[in-house]
Parts: sequence; C-alpha cells; structure tokens
Amino acid sequence: MDLFAVFKELQQKSDTKILLVVLDGVGGLPLEPGGPTELEAARTPNLDRLAGESALGLLTLVYPGLTPGSGPGHLALFGYDPFRYLVGRGALSALGLGVDFRDGDVALRGNFATLGPDGQVLDRRAGRPSTEENRRVVAKLQEAIPRIEDVAVYFYTESEHRFLVVLRGEGLGDGVTDTDPQKTGLPPLEAKALDEASRKTARVVNLLSARIREVLRDEPKINGALFRGASRRPSFPSMAEVYGVRAAAIASYPMYKGLASLVGMEVLPVEGEGDAHEGKLKVLRENWEGYDFFYLHFKKTDAKGEDGDFPGKVAEIERFDALLPEILALKPDVLAITGDHSTPALLRAHSWHPVPLLLKAPYLRRDAAQRFTESEATKGSLGHLRGMELMPLLLAHAGKLLKYGA
Amino acid sequence: MDLFAVFKELQQKSDTKILLVVLDGVGGLPLEPGGPTELEAARTPNLDRLAGESALGLLTLVYPGLTPGSGPGHLALFGYDPFRYLVGRGALSALGLGVDFRDGDVALRGNFATLGPDGQVLDRRAGRPSTEENRRVVAKLQEAIPRIEDVAVYFYTESEHRFLVVLRGEGLGDGVTDTDPQKTGLPPLEAKALDEASRKTARVVNLLSARIREVLRDEPKINGALFRGASRRPSFPSMAEVYGVRAAAIASYPMYKGLASLVGMEVLPVEGEGDAHEGKLKVLRENWEGYDFFYLHFKKTDAKGEDGDFPGKVAEIERFDALLPEILALKPDVLAITGDHSTPALLRAHSWHPVPLLLKAPYLRRDAAQRFTESEATKGSLGHLRGMELMPLLLAHAGKLLKYGA
Repeated sequence: MDLFAVFKELQQKSDTKILLVVLDGVGGLPLEPGGPTELEAARTPNLDRLAGESALGLLTLVYPGLTPGSGPGHLALFGYDPFRYLVGRGALSALGLGVDFRDGDVALRGNFATLGPDGQVLDRRAGRPSTEENRRVVAKLQEAIPRIEDVAVYFYTESEHRFLVVLRGEGLGDGVTDTDPQKTGLPPLEAKALDEASRKTARVVNLLSARIREVLRDEPKINGALFRGASRRPSFPSMAEVYGVRAAAIASYPMYKGLASLVGMEVLPVEGEGDAHEGKLKVLRENWEGYDFFYLHFKKTDAKGEDGDFPGKVAEIERFDALLPEILALKPDVLAITGDHSTPALLRAHSWHPVPLLLKAPYLRRDAAQRFTESEATKGSLGHLRGMELMPLLLAHAGKLLKYGA
Repeated sequence: MDLFAVFKELQQKSDTKILLVVLDGVGGLPLEPGGPTELEAARTPNLDRLAGESALGLLTLVYPGLTPGSGPGHLALFGYDPFRYLVGRGALSALGLGVDFRDGDVALRGNFATLGPDGQVLDRRAGRPSTEENRRVVAKLQEAIPRIEDVAVYFYTESEHRFLVVLRGEGLGDGVTDTDPQKTGLPPLEAKALDEASRKTARVVNLLSARIREVLRDEPKINGALFRGASRRPSFPSMAEVYGVRAAAIASYPMYKGLASLVGMEVLPVEGEGDAHEGKLKVLRENWEGYDFFYLHFKKTDAKGEDGDFPGKVAEIERFDALLPEILALKPDVLAITGDHSTPALLRAHSWHPVPLLLKAPYLRRDAAQRFTESEATKGSLGHLRGMELMPLLLAHAGKLLKYGA
C-alpha cells in the first residue's frame, strides 16, 4: 500500500510550524539490570516539565528486532518506508562524506586490500592502514587516474582501509556486482552488469580495478582495491510533493544533511564545531519564517553511545535539556523530540530497542508519562508506533492533513 | 515486502540459545466481568519472580479480531506471515493426525455423509457416527480401495463423521475444488481441476467418490463421502535458511510436531503421556548443546480451555509454573513464554484476544509488569506486538541479527 498517494491527496496548507528534533541514538539501556538508562539517569528539568504537558509514546523505527542504520532510521522518521526507500552502500558513504554526488553519478564503497603475486587477496583490509596512509594513497590514485574512458573518477578517503569512488559520466547504471570476494585466497571478482543499462559501469569498474593495481604495484601493502555497493543517488519523492511542506534541515554532519537532501529538504548552513548547539539555534531562529517543517539534528548522543561512554551520553542529553528553553521560545505549533534508533552505551552500537517520542502539540489527551524516558514513554498516550507513522501524526496535529474518505 | 529476504541478509552466528515456550491457548477471560482470567487466578510464584526481572508485552497473533487456528498461530510465532504461509485444510488434518504425509502427496478432508436414492445429500454428517463406527468404515474402505489407477489411497479416521484421505502417486496437483455441496438436497459436486497440473487429482477424487459409494451401498447411514481442502504438504523456507538457526521442536501432539517440521525444525522424540512434562524436560536437557533455537510446546492449557474447565486450566498453568525452575536451570540466553492464541474456558474455544508475552533476555529495560498475566502484560515495556514480530526480537536479543542498512 503506497500511503504517499494518500498523503498527496490529503495535503492542506496551514500557517503552522512543525519542529522535529532528532537526538541521534538517544534510546539507551541500563548498565545493570534494573538500573537507569541514560535518559533516566540524566537531570533534565526542562524536558521533564515539557513531558508533563506533552503526549509520549515509543517508536520502533523499522521493525521489532531490526537495528536501524542511520539511513533507514532517518527515512522512517521522515515518513519514508525504510523497506521501500533504500539507499545503497556507496550512496550512503557519499552522503556521509558530504562529497559532490550528483544525479547520474555512481558511488562505490572501496576497501584497500593486499593482493598476492598471483592476484589473490591476502588481506581484505591491507593491514588496516592509518587514515593518513589512506589519504596518501588516495592522492596518488587521484593524480594517476583522473578518468577511465570518458568517465571522471573521484577518489575520497573514508578511514583506515575504507575509501569511496564516485564515477561521473553518461550512461552509468548501478546494477553492478561487487568485486569483493568476501574472503582471502581468492582473486577479486569481476564486476558484472545486472542489467543492460549498467554494462558500461561494469566495464569501467573492471578497468579501474586493473589501473589501481598498476598504479599501486610497488606499494608494500596497499596494492589493490575491492568494490562494493555500487549505487546512484536515489531519487525519492520530495517532502514538498508528498506532504506539501517547505522543509528545512539543520544538521552538522554530512550524513544527515545528505539524507535530508534526499527527501528534498533545504539544508541550511550551520556555523560551529561538533554539535554546534548555538549555531543551530541561530540558524533555526533566522529561518523560522521561511519554512513550515524543520528537522533539527544532534549527533553527540549517538557518538557517546558508540564510545560506550554512559556519563558522556548523559551529559549530552543534559546539554540538550539546557538548550530546550531557547527552542520552546520559538513556539513551534508541533514539536516532536525523538531518536532515529537507540545507541546504548552498554552495547557501544546502534540497537533495535524502541526510542521514546515526545509530542507537544494542540489537541492532546491526558497522558500518564511524566518524563522523556523509555520507561515513562511506555505509559504514554501515543502508544507504540512504527517510525514511519510519526510524520502523518505531526501533519495532523499541525492541521496539514485532511480527512481520509468522506 | 518479503522480510525473509531481509532476515537472510542479516543473519549472524552467535553462541547463544533461544527457548520459545508455547503454552497453547494460555490467554483467557474472566468468567464474570471484572473477575480474574485463568492466568490471574493461578498461583504462579516462579512465573511471578521471573516476570519481575523480565520484559512483558502482548501479542496479537494474526490480526486484531482474528481468532487463530493452530496453524496460523504457530506459524506467526515462528515468524512466518500467517497470511502468506498457508496450510490447506487437508494438509493440516494430516499433520494433526501425524500420518505419513510426504512431498507430492495430496491430503483431503472427508466427511461421511448419508446420500438418498437419487444421490442427493440427506445428511452431511451421516448422523454423527461414533468414532468407533468411523474406524469400522475406514477399515472397510481401506481394504476395498487400496488404489485408484496408479495412485495409492490411504484412509484415516479423524473423529465422528470426519476422516482423512491421502493420495500418493505421480503428478498430483492440489488445485481441486471441493465435492461438498455445503447443503442437503443437492448431489455431491464433481471435483474440478483448477489448473492443468491437477487434472489427474480431480479425476482420481471423482473415481474415488464413486468407488466409496459402491463399497458403502449397503450401509444404512454412512453411504457416501464429501471432500474438502485438497492440499499438498506446503513447502516453506526453513528457519535455518531464513534465520540461520538450528531449530528443534519438543512437543507431544502430532499437529505441533507437524507444524514445526514444516518450518524445518528437527522434531525430537518425547517419552510419556499427555503433556509429558518430565519427558520434555529430559529431551530438552539432553539436546541442549545440539541446537540454538528450541520450541517447547505444552498443550493442556488449551485442552482445558476447550473443555470449558476454568479450574483445570488454572491447574495446568500451575503445573507449568512448578516446572519452570528446571527450565531456568538450563540458563537459556533468551527465553520467551507465550501462547499461540487465547482459549478462554468461558468460550470453550480459541479466541482473538491477545496473549501475554514474557521475555527474559540480555539488554532489557525497566518494566512495570509484575506478573505473567493479560492485565500486567498491558503495562509491559515490549508493548503490543503482532505475532510474527516476535521472532526477529528474539534473534536480536540473542545477537543473531545484524544492523539493517548502514
């Protein structure tokens, strides 16, 4: 069932503003059974007060048990079915690095590898080089291989053994198999076209692999490359088309700016380092009149979780809490605060656990939840929703969605 | 969206064990409004203690308001979409009786009927004969009709007027219409092939119907047969393929062993009568090292509910409670306790009401539910899930499911 067709029919203009705050990876776990999660441990007087006058609930972003990557988690929050709107691995890397990546380009995720004298893979990660070493080799390749046939080739360092290639030229499909054999002792695979439109891409990838081996033949460790996840920039319907909103994104990290741009949001430039709290608020204030939907992203809650830093994640939640009065001063008609997935410090990774959702909006019912925490959200009047169900709820509370059926 | 394709991609091996305990039909209803359900009335000190350190929730097995049969209820618990993975009526009977039923066989559910002199149906149930009488007629038919053309025919007693026929031979499709006209005064219908591959089956069913009338022409009441639900043994992807687990089933009743075998579980032999509590525990202990997923089934909670025996069902719940310490002693990494549907004694039948779910596993949050009951489960941190959503959740907690999307 394509709900976008329904939403398109039901669009209604209204002079209201929706603000979606995403605290990346905010959901957590207790370090010991029965203990508090990061949100439960945090002192959040402003969030507590807001929760008392809001409706709460839980969001399972993608599906019970499925741990969302950043792509599926965010697309779900934007209302895009994460099983239907897929972003390939190469495209996601390009978005994450924030490089020039245009319609028609094909992005490939690369691993530097060590190949033996007969061409077989000895180490799929070339001994995990430093990122500095990666930069040196990428510069060498970029200079030696500016193009293959009429296709421009752009190399970018990701980290350690990981790099990105963007191919730019006419007639490049992305239906191409990986060259990574996924195990040592075998030679890299030949890239094969999965459709007619991708034959040129496959040929270029194979020529590129051969050229890389030539250029790197005297390198002691990094003397080959394995490619995965060839993908074009996905072409998704925009939030303007689907929901009829003018949407803006305020985020610091390339991945989130990239994901927002995929759904047609205007990405507003933010000044400042890291999470740039003040820079983001400044941009939000300055652009408040220009849009009716804002996506405001904070990254550090996830980063601290990935580091296994429980107190650090608590501190980031408290930093957000301190910022909250400035956000509320803008008086958004509809304010949602949630996460794109859980990142419990206990697990040092994303997890499948649902995230709390706070909704401050007109037309709420009484709600028993008193804090923006996982356990309080369980009591909330919004119940337990799927991530992609949030967006129509926000539109409804904002008066932007008409009645369905007569 | 076929989630099995997703799960296949995300399989991860881990050295953990999942134990899924199914208390058949465990969900109940109060005998009088405001009174306790069977679970609420039961004294369950071990379950109560476990609930205190577990996460709880509710499962709607198939769909709100839909009362699950044993097939859909169990397939949902195994993660198989009960609207997609269908078991025909004939096949379900064959599984329930535990008879030899092989790939390529076609099973048909039969009703003994009384036909009038012109061949019209006078009684679709032949006056509800005793099961003993059914056995006598089945034996007579089996002796007289060992085969039709080159197809072997096997007759089995189910109960009263109900019997089963299994056809075994080459080229038997199961796209065949029923011969039961569903009302009296009409003659039995001719079986028709719905596809080319089922033409032989239709012909054999019609010849069989005629032969049955010949053989039974002197019987006073049982002188005809009506057939429904021709079906082959379904061919489902195995749990090993979909989830990457080695799965074992421990159950006493043929239906549940049959359903487990349909999803590729190894069915372990259990000694003892009825629910065979000790026999099942013995098999579980002896095979603990050999598998990473166990399905452990108890039937009597359902049977007592079907009997309308409220105290009997309470007693069966208490019997399970007494067994629980022995189960916990095996220290499963992930333990789920739930039902395949409700069978309230009040209704003497399966019902659509959700069943409580208890999950004891690593990586749980605080949970307000303190007992394994319908009303406490409503407060649980797992929320209200659909039956088929349980399996990925178990895999996630067991570390057997990778991240979805980068």
